[in-house]
Amino acid sequence: MQPTLSVIGTIHSSLKNLDDCPRQENESAPAATIEIKPEYAQGIKDIEPGQEMLLLTWLHQADRTVLANHPRNNTQLPLTGVFSTRSPDRPNPIGLHIVQVLEITEDGLIKVDSLEALDQTPVLDIKPVLKR
Amino acid sequence: MQPTLSVIGTIHSSLKNLDDCPRQENESAPAATIEIKPEYAQGIKDIEPGQEMLLLTWLHQADRTVLANHPRNNTQLPLTGVFSTRSPDRPNPIGLHIVQVLEITEDGLIKVDSLEALDQTPVLDIKPVLKR
Repeated sequence: MQPTLSVIGTIHSSLKNLDDCPRQENESAPAATIEIKPEYAQGIKDIEPGQEMLLLTWLHQADRTVLANHPRNNTQLPLTGVFSTRSPDRPNPIGLHIVQVLEITEDGLIKVDSLEALDQTPVLDIKPVLKR
Repeated sequence: MQPTLSVIGTIHSSLKNLDDCPRQENESAPAATIEIKPEYAQGIKDIEPGQEMLLLTWLHQADRTVLANHPRNNTQLPLTGVFSTRSPDRPNPIGLHIVQVLEITEDGLIKVDSLEALDQTPVLDIKPVLKR
């Protein structure tokens, strides 16, 4: 089975290419806007400003053939199995981002405080944050 | 763009159908085994017993047409936009599970302590846990 993803929206960000990106989510990243497609608008009707949400994206510029790499692109660190790293270069480059919702507009734009994702990154899902 | 996922492995669990499943990850779930395909074995070489990992799965029995539902299947709760719920029924049913690794065998089996996922659930990714 090869499941196919449905793209529910798109990221708009000032991060235009990979060189603009910080190396981990907890480093500073700019505010961004999530544009949800009209056909998925019903799904976001209960998201409110101030909420912390988990955003799932498809890191479309990733190299999906990588099985081991140097953490944080630091060649001083040992070559590590990709499933022990958070590198975007991996078989299924699904990005996980915790975002704080600042504003939602009537036309399906969700403004968030800080997001490490390139402009035009496809959006897959939004979930409430739930700790174990 | 309709990205296609690569299935990297399969869950083996005593949860054989949806009625067996608890309603949230923090309710009790049984131990399970993650079988990684041989072609992805290099990627798990640095995972060790005792580590807490984030497991991503494809919830293959989900209804992908749902955009609103009652949280926790409780019809007393108001109909809620799906992106404000953790329901598996959603456009991209990607399961997120925090698991504790108990054991790894040489043939690519990862035994974990507690996992709410049906037997035969496809595995998409494994990442180290990283808090914001």
